[in-house]
Amino acid sequence: MNIDQANRTAVERMMAARPVLKGLATAREVIPGMSDDLLLHAGPPIEWTRASGPLRGAVIGALLFEGRARDEAGAIALIERGEVRLEPCHHHGAVGPMAGVISPSMRVYVVEDVTHGHRTFSNLNEGYGKVLRYGAFSGDVLTKLRWMNDFLAPVLGRAIELLDGIDLRTLIAEALHMGDEGHNRNKAGSLLFLKLLAPAIARANPAREIHAEVLKFLGENPLSVLNPVMAACKAMADAAHGVEGSTIVSTMARNGTDFGIRVSGLGDRWLTAPSQVPEGLYFPGFSSADANPDIGDSTITETAGIGAFAMAAAPAIVTFIGGTPRDALNATLEMYEITAAEHSHFTIPALGFRGTPVGIDLRKVVELGITPRVNTGIAHKAAGVGQVGAGLVRPPMEIFEAALVAYAERYDI
Amino acid sequence: MNIDQANRTAVERMMAARPVLKGLATAREVIPGMSDDLLLHAGPPIEWTRASGPLRGAVIGALLFEGRARDEAGAIALIERGEVRLEPCHHHGAVGPMAGVISPSMRVYVVEDVTHGHRTFSNLNEGYGKVLRYGAFSGDVLTKLRWMNDFLAPVLGRAIELLDGIDLRTLIAEALHMGDEGHNRNKAGSLLFLKLLAPAIARANPAREIHAEVLKFLGENPLSVLNPVMAACKAMADAAHGVEGSTIVSTMARNGTDFGIRVSGLGDRWLTAPSQVPEGLYFPGFSSADANPDIGDSTITETAGIGAFAMAAAPAIVTFIGGTPRDALNATLEMYEITAAEHSHFTIPALGFRGTPVGIDLRKVVELGITPRVNTGIAHKAAGVGQVGAGLVRPPMEIFEAALVAYAERYDI
Repeated sequence: MNIDQANRTAVERMMAARPVLKGLATAREVIPGMSDDLLLHAGPPIEWTRASGPLRGAVIGALLFEGRARDEAGAIALIERGEVRLEPCHHHGAVGPMAGVISPSMRVYVVEDVTHGHRTFSNLNEGYGKVLRYGAFSGDVLTKLRWMNDFLAPVLGRAIELLDGIDLRTLIAEALHMGDEGHNRNKAGSLLFLKLLAPAIARANPAREIHAEVLKFLGENPLSVLNPVMAACKAMADAAHGVEGSTIVSTMARNGTDFGIRVSGLGDRWLTAPSQVPEGLYFPGFSSADANPDIGDSTITETAGIGAFAMAAAPAIVTFIGGTPRDALNATLEMYEITAAEHSHFTIPALGFRGTPVGIDLRKVVELGITPRVNTGIAHKAAGVGQVGAGLVRPPMEIFEAALVAYAERYDI
Repeated sequence: MNIDQANRTAVERMMAARPVLKGLATAREVIPGMSDDLLLHAGPPIEWTRASGPLRGAVIGALLFEGRARDEAGAIALIERGEVRLEPCHHHGAVGPMAGVISPSMRVYVVEDVTHGHRTFSNLNEGYGKVLRYGAFSGDVLTKLRWMNDFLAPVLGRAIELLDGIDLRTLIAEALHMGDEGHNRNKAGSLLFLKLLAPAIARANPAREIHAEVLKFLGENPLSVLNPVMAACKAMADAAHGVEGSTIVSTMARNGTDFGIRVSGLGDRWLTAPSQVPEGLYFPGFSSADANPDIGDSTITETAGIGAFAMAAAPAIVTFIGGTPRDALNATLEMYEITAAEHSHFTIPALGFRGTPVGIDLRKVVELGITPRVNTGIAHKAAGVGQVGAGLVRPPMEIFEAALVAYAERYDI
């Protein structure tokens, strides 16, 4: 077993992946294994009884959105009667930020890795404030979701079709040169996305008022490109998955209760441990006492070598998550210690255009005692509230230790 | 004479200025002193016989654009007969990049410093390639200029009106947090400009094909916001001009033959010396042998504390102008030596959000022997060719020495 060689193969596949945004489609029509009684969620598998507040809120909201229930109690009853199943997005080629709930009627972005041929999916980004992904499900949250599904998505879909797709690897690379790290700061990427879409939207010629609303919504949401970027990172990480003997981490994801990882050479098995509360800056009126443990599939960005791993590219992010620009630089430098390669496409100007650290090597994490860094939003722990801050978190070391034990058993080392 | 106090007043006025883009208008209708026999140009005053190739080319192009001449020879004859006058943009509240030629029929951006009430002007940006501002005047250059004047400008004007103006100081501040320095790198600023304009353009509801073309032109031109930014910097620098006793430089500008400065406490007098050839990266097939000496009013950005003075915010720029990210950092650090203040609105994340160096103090330049740094595009020396590279340049020290002598005489020191 040449582990180093296996890891090189995995990381080279990750970097060779070229995720292209191909369009939008309805989840039930395009996501493999999606069905009308299924809701997808962020992170590793979890049963309803163990689900955290924001995940519960998002599940309730999705059932209201689908018209499956008329109120919170009705939604909960449906789940408790077993009429609705919950499965990880990751089991269906999908990713979703925070609660990450994707329901059958939702329009999703379709990304294709044109190098290796596989497809990935993500839902639409709702912006900041009271939103489903943070577990909010009030009337205004649902109204916005319906507008996004019925008006925004068709316009975006038609525009992406007219553009014949959007190369997301190029977009991410450019955004990293414009102060984004691609997870918690997507200001530049979202504007690059808008720049590409706007002329195509004009050619698609939607009704005047919808047209202005769509451009305003995209332009004013500095996270608008987050979900396509996550699907792109999922496509890259999936390309690295399943390499026999590789100790490269190919998934990191949290459901608000557990943090889970999967490893390239260990198949589809999850290694999990309790999720931690992030440290960061809280919005006025909130504190860490309000915070839910870390949640969301957005850690796929760090898995693919951006996000906190590219913090050195995004010194301005510290106004949002705390710390100093020097901390941002150090975050990236530290991640070189536990990764297998420097990215051939994603580079950091401030580090002399050094490639971002990419391909978390399980062995290095355990040997050096350095867990991956993650940038994240912070959800309120109660269902229906929403975002209360943003900050930094790390997965528990015990996951990596357990993964190394599992690896030793699997490969009989 | 308390020079320090006078300089504080000048720099505080510069930083208190709040330039707002109010709209577009035809030059002859809005620029004070503009008339049908007048062309404005970049830099200090210059007679035709001493004008460099790119300035000559742009003057010829402008006369063709105006329909004053049918060909190059006819345009030159008009000027030689004295039927067309040349005056600096700066004498009319205006600025223009490179040759900076503004003719009576051209639509110009109108910027107002809403703090102090004065207005400034700049022409529209043509993008990269063969363009009038680099002295190119072929048929395709004029066709593009006509499209910009007849189709682009009215759409932009209507959109800016619907927005009730665009706060350019805020836009510049945000762009500096996204890897721009505001002179030679305006990628982020141009996207922020597009983001603000796009929904308003949709509300203005232009014809479908023009609509898409306008958005494509704005989105694909990473310099689209340069000219409004220059007018904003002119508004800020003008606010600092005319403070009795101040040694702050309130204008730096080049006409392709001479580099000129004006000083806040020395009125409208220009101090000039021969312009230098920039050092930088040349486009394939060109070298410094092709380069014209430094040209353009765009040094107004450095005068107002951005551009090369904010290079530390824009490490990715070195791929365009040469050098390393460390050089970019050092450029800003050096400029703190010769400036009077740190900007209260423009900050650099990588320097711990330190304000940019602002307010070039003549005394410090001469005392320390450090001239201001300037980022710039490089024009071909022949009329009609265009841009051949981008790089760095400094004004000749003798200008500042002469200015200090003039100051001593004026104030009898």
